[in-house]
Amino acid sequence: MAFTILKGTILSAPTLGELEAVEGGYLVAEDGVIRGVYETLPEAYASEPVEDWGDALILQSFSDMHLHAPQYPMMGMGLDLPLMDWLQTYTFPLEANYADTGYARAVYRQLAHDLVENGTTRVCIFSSLHRPATLILMEELERAGVSGYVGKVNMDRNGGEHLQETTEESMAETLQWLEECQRFQTVRPILTPRFTPSCTDRLMAFLGKLAAERDLPIQSHLSENDAEIETVLKLCPDCGQYWESYAKRGLWTNRTLMAHCVWSDERERKAMKDAGVTVVHCGDSNWNICSGTAPVRKMLDEGLKVVLGSDVAGGDNLSMFQAVIAALRASKVRCTTDGSPFLTVAEAWYLATSAPADFFGEKPGFAPGNRLGAMVLADDKVLSPHPLSPAQRLERAVYRRQKNAIRAVYSGGRKVFSAQ
Amino acid sequence: MAFTILKGTILSAPTLGELEAVEGGYLVAEDGVIRGVYETLPEAYASEPVEDWGDALILQSFSDMHLHAPQYPMMGMGLDLPLMDWLQTYTFPLEANYADTGYARAVYRQLAHDLVENGTTRVCIFSSLHRPATLILMEELERAGVSGYVGKVNMDRNGGEHLQETTEESMAETLQWLEECQRFQTVRPILTPRFTPSCTDRLMAFLGKLAAERDLPIQSHLSENDAEIETVLKLCPDCGQYWESYAKRGLWTNRTLMAHCVWSDERERKAMKDAGVTVVHCGDSNWNICSGTAPVRKMLDEGLKVVLGSDVAGGDNLSMFQAVIAALRASKVRCTTDGSPFLTVAEAWYLATSAPADFFGEKPGFAPGNRLGAMVLADDKVLSPHPLSPAQRLERAVYRRQKNAIRAVYSGGRKVFSAQ
Repeated sequence: MAFTILKGTILSAPTLGELEAVEGGYLVAEDGVIRGVYETLPEAYASEPVEDWGDALILQSFSDMHLHAPQYPMMGMGLDLPLMDWLQTYTFPLEANYADTGYARAVYRQLAHDLVENGTTRVCIFSSLHRPATLILMEELERAGVSGYVGKVNMDRNGGEHLQETTEESMAETLQWLEECQRFQTVRPILTPRFTPSCTDRLMAFLGKLAAERDLPIQSHLSENDAEIETVLKLCPDCGQYWESYAKRGLWTNRTLMAHCVWSDERERKAMKDAGVTVVHCGDSNWNICSGTAPVRKMLDEGLKVVLGSDVAGGDNLSMFQAVIAALRASKVRCTTDGSPFLTVAEAWYLATSAPADFFGEKPGFAPGNRLGAMVLADDKVLSPHPLSPAQRLERAVYRRQKNAIRAVYSGGRKVFSAQ
Repeated sequence: MAFTILKGTILSAPTLGELEAVEGGYLVAEDGVIRGVYETLPEAYASEPVEDWGDALILQSFSDMHLHAPQYPMMGMGLDLPLMDWLQTYTFPLEANYADTGYARAVYRQLAHDLVENGTTRVCIFSSLHRPATLILMEELERAGVSGYVGKVNMDRNGGEHLQETTEESMAETLQWLEECQRFQTVRPILTPRFTPSCTDRLMAFLGKLAAERDLPIQSHLSENDAEIETVLKLCPDCGQYWESYAKRGLWTNRTLMAHCVWSDERERKAMKDAGVTVVHCGDSNWNICSGTAPVRKMLDEGLKVVLGSDVAGGDNLSMFQAVIAALRASKVRCTTDGSPFLTVAEAWYLATSAPADFFGEKPGFAPGNRLGAMVLADDKVLSPHPLSPAQRLERAVYRRQKNAIRAVYSGGRKVFSAQ
């Protein structure tokens, strides 16, 4: 048995809005699986080595539940354009480059490294439509210590000259990819129709059938932008609302992730709740591409499952600290327009760390049985107005996102990042 | 004569919305004053040493036109509270500490260092009500190479037990401070009634008279938050709108800075335009304290003078890159609610660098005669989708705000920051 034992101020989010702190505590994992958090180290582990991080915060690492790996090189670019123009001018031409496996390898290795450096150890991530590049992405993530779900993108219409598959190609490549990616341990496949404007009904129905037969999760986009919604309703005259274009093809399950949902109305939100669909809220991205401000508080109040995503490269930053701030601000923008209460830091932190556990069959917080995902955050060099509680230290770390604060990151049984 | 000659990709914002790039160009300053930007180095400077930054971007440094120095230690804290509670619970008790000059020295030295490290070489900044601590702030800024205006805060009501002056004290201390701060060269005094809820009519009238007699600039807050506005209208039954509480006491001039103006309506905005008052827009702060989203595009369209501030510690970050993004996002939030066009990166960059020039009697961009304020930004380690223009590189730098991108900062004739 291999043990990871971390000592420090252990701070986790076991329930929405509440933080649990154990100062001078021990976080114990065995073969990469959490055994518990203890005030004093149990006798059974007494002979195992302890990494003592002193007073530093030991936090759950992040799950980034929506981002586009191939768009990483254009992060922070072209954001003066609206969604549909941005896709055609910047995104699709760049994604076409991933036919080149050498290019894919270079970008994905860098991305995987940068993810763990930012404290993200789990993702639900879009690749491009290219099967070989998708396998490379899975390989690089697994090597860097990032677990989660990776999707080969399906898109058999409206991709332009250089980024499109035929329906037959898309189906065949998906089946072959599912075959080939069985070799990975901690990175698994997720079906990924890009979004309705990119996929014919026939392709969507094929993917829906596949999801049911093989019990596969699904990720896509929903109601991000008004021009997009209009396009969908034109393309799918049999659908009264956007979500039905997924639901009618079998892609609307309790293992479905839908990014954005900025403009989902009461009926669409109810359909999400009834089916157990999870919303991925990406505040910065929604503003960057001028989509709007999703009603994150309302979705939580209505009992929807909500998690956060960086949405690189609609999002401009890989750091999930930034996604937490974006969720706080989105809720504050809504607060000053429709009066709904804003999120607290503890609530937004829960969305970025604990809320995604359910999608992976785990429990919130540092629960026993969860895969170890933790980061060590040092904040002793920062000026304080007075001695701070662990929760206040977290709040300050979220907002200040100071340079080089993350000292180490653990994923499974491995230390995957260590600051110089 | 002492020369500063910087070689690189010189990129400046001479007019709102336009960037001017000279690749492989020279920025020349003499005794800290800009002489010009050249494609080839003029013969006259041929024997002077050149700092060659290769392909790096050489940008105008930032002017942070609104922040609170004493609040620096609480940056990123207490932001789950609304403005008036936040002031009473966090801000005022912390500011009371600055009666201790040792405490002031330690905080202000750190702040001054961190400002230049973030590329900010000019400020309009609030101190606390303490005269000795205000002189220490001026000293530390000047030593670090930050020029601009510093204000001893005036507040003779509603400050609580530990943070209040009598009207007489406030007047006498202000006069003594103006006397004592004549010794500084590049940091000058600005009259700083905290805001109307903190100042009696008598104190305001005294300051208004002082401003006129000595030709002094003025900074304060305006229409940030609904509870604040309500308080002002109760305190000043002779004023139909918030701005009149300044205007009626002589504090409404073309050398007046007003922070926030989130809720200023058409009439209040017209009063600003007519008097030549400058608005300091602080987007992040407005969201943090749940104030609202200022109509930054509308204010520009109406011909108001608009600049940006970090508003530490209502703002959570000292980096003006962040203030630029906040302005972009504020405009995009308004875009999706009232349809007004959003700001471009070039426009927001202008607000953070060139727009403040006027307040200091200078011209936009790297204009000859301006005090040298420049930063060197290296971005060669960042993945790119294709070769980028200088403007695209700036856009990416703004959004990505990558760690350690700023390699050097110049202020006047001095290199005030150099990365290790």
